Amino acid sequence: MTSEPGAEPRRYFDWAASAPPDFPPPDARFPFGNPSSPHREGREARDALEAARAKCAAVLGVPPDALYFTSGGTEANCIPLHSSLARRGSGRILASMGEHSSISQNVKSLERLGMRVGFIPIDSSGRVTPELLSRALEKHPDARFAAIMAVGNETGTINDIRALRGELRSANGAPIHLHCDAAQAVGKIPVDLAGWGADSASISAHKIGGPRGVGLLYLRRPMEALCLGGGQERKIRSGTENVQGAAALAACLEMRADPERMRAEGGRAGARWRRLLGELKKIGRCRLIPEARGIDDGGFSPYIVQAAFEDIPGEVMARALDGLGFAVSTGAACSSSSPERPVLAAMGIGDGLRLEGIRISQGWATTDGEIDGLLAAIAEVLKFL
Amino acid sequence: MTSEPGAEPRRYFDWAASAPPDFPPPDARFPFGNPSSPHREGREARDALEAARAKCAAVLGVPPDALYFTSGGTEANCIPLHSSLARRGSGRILASMGEHSSISQNVKSLERLGMRVGFIPIDSSGRVTPELLSRALEKHPDARFAAIMAVGNETGTINDIRALRGELRSANGAPIHLHCDAAQAVGKIPVDLAGWGADSASISAHKIGGPRGVGLLYLRRPMEALCLGGGQERKIRSGTENVQGAAALAACLEMRADPERMRAEGGRAGARWRRLLGELKKIGRCRLIPEARGIDDGGFSPYIVQAAFEDIPGEVMARALDGLGFAVSTGAACSSSSPERPVLAAMGIGDGLRLEGIRISQGWATTDGEIDGLLAAIAEVLKFL
Repeated sequence: MTSEPGAEPRRYFDWAASAPPDFPPPDARFPFGNPSSPHREGREARDALEAARAKCAAVLGVPPDALYFTSGGTEANCIPLHSSLARRGSGRILASMGEHSSISQNVKSLERLGMRVGFIPIDSSGRVTPELLSRALEKHPDARFAAIMAVGNETGTINDIRALRGELRSANGAPIHLHCDAAQAVGKIPVDLAGWGADSASISAHKIGGPRGVGLLYLRRPMEALCLGGGQERKIRSGTENVQGAAALAACLEMRADPERMRAEGGRAGARWRRLLGELKKIGRCRLIPEARGIDDGGFSPYIVQAAFEDIPGEVMARALDGLGFAVSTGAACSSSSPERPVLAAMGIGDGLRLEGIRISQGWATTDGEIDGLLAAIAEVLKFL
Repeated sequence: MTSEPGAEPRRYFDWAASAPPDFPPPDARFPFGNPSSPHREGREARDALEAARAKCAAVLGVPPDALYFTSGGTEANCIPLHSSLARRGSGRILASMGEHSSISQNVKSLERLGMRVGFIPIDSSGRVTPELLSRALEKHPDARFAAIMAVGNETGTINDIRALRGELRSANGAPIHLHCDAAQAVGKIPVDLAGWGADSASISAHKIGGPRGVGLLYLRRPMEALCLGGGQERKIRSGTENVQGAAALAACLEMRADPERMRAEGGRAGARWRRLLGELKKIGRCRLIPEARGIDDGGFSPYIVQAAFEDIPGEVMARALDGLGFAVSTGAACSSSSPERPVLAAMGIGDGLRLEGIRISQGWATTDGEIDGLLAAIAEVLKFL
């Protein structure tokens, strides 16, 4: 992703924060009616909305009526979590210690409201293992909800949701709702929400080139939402439907999460990542986080890597690279104002190294030349800092 | 708003449900970064977001840091209401009986969660009068929150928010938070959130020609949100910011809510409405709701009218007009699937008449010819039904 000629060249390595938009341009003749209105303009909008839902369902291999359009990934995470307020006394809410702030902050908020909550530790790779989950369930036999993300947004760590679902099934006895934040997984790794046995999952459009302000919530079975209103999206997400956003999201899912295309793109991304990680590992002052990550490690997404440079605070490195034309981030964009890096801390990364971490993330438009450029820029920074 | 040549002509009279889009087309060079990212792409996005906020603030005459972008009007109503969950024990929540479902349904939801709630009656015009408010406050001395909309979405009834604020001030003693749903007011009637003394207010972009999926919450003072996450919008509305949506909303506010332009457009809308209401009043089988509404009644928005036709259920009338090329609605689009019409019931409108009501709403592109066409279509329907 290089800027247009004339402008100072920029290389974008923060795709995990937001991907450059790549969806069909809005069509002036797109139905503008309110899908809840029974007149023709309304029916046309309703048809467009349901066509978008059907497309998403086909790509994700789930029934259309299990999909609800939301205003984004955060809301798609909030709805099932906050729904538990309507089911008070229904058990403890667990979340992995690798979760994005749109899960972890809401779990804390629910705790302040009197709900019982608990955390599932992650290992030094940022992963929830069946053993860690099993121990958390033993400690919390009253757990009825567990949030475990598919791909960690800071390190790219992949969780084996199917295996964890098996662990959740065998434990306790009462059914445990499994919520899976799939924002960094969809379009990047094979996602099989139904096959994994997830009860709910969240997807964000802008992470796969779609517009801001639209996302998807997968719900195997309907639940009661906390925020109500006009009752749109079968009472799960009230508010006039963002039909154009839904259509754009559907187009992006078709482009990015189609299994064949995703495999081909994933192969190219993997090759670029092998080169990047291989070269980073040769730099004496660089440590991958986790350090055990291999250069072609199937346990991680080939779109994200976290790396630390000795004696260079992550934000200094990010600023230096920015000055050279390269956009990288420290941690999630959402938490850039909170330097604690709780996910890295949960992985057991010590104070010093943790604050030296930067996140490099790529996408479908990243080129080999950009990888080389980034490596050269890092070398340049290391000369002076 | 007539369709393009070639297509069957359509006349749209459901602007209150959603306005036809009228905002600058998206610019491919629009900053796509995540405003929370500190790199250049992020800073450019942040600048665009804050420029949009400043524009909105200038039009609305409030400080920029009192404005929070949301995913729409429903969310902007939900945030202050649900915030009360975080302040349990802080008093009763009142809402007028004229409120949109995004208020009324959430008040019921909060009641189920154990919050104390109450309702402020409306008069036969759909209006909260100082007397009705005063009586509600006497009945509920523990009230600490009151939701009163600026313009009723079903009848166009205007509430005098400033006068009601005065009543809230003089009552009880403890401060009472006044929330004002301004979705049908902004761009239609003069809105002075600060002057009115509202503590919070909600605005929806798509009601004034903006895109779906974006709205504004005005908060005189910050409060604690229930749904958390990355902490965007100063922790009031988490989720990656919809920068392009915010910019489009700002452009629409500048176009539609600029006082001079709004006055000029309002004058033209008023003239069209005088003609429509005058002719409707001449039809023996037609009754305006409320019947006391004058043809040039300053107590109502010149953009919305509710009318009933004797012996013709509203949905039959709407369907017949739709067949003739005219889009009108029965009640709010959001409640088209629930036929109870609770707002009309609260006005004291009897069962029969209530179900005969249709809502006709216009906008800046409505023409005199369309008004004449609608009147002719109504006459046509009345011949046969």
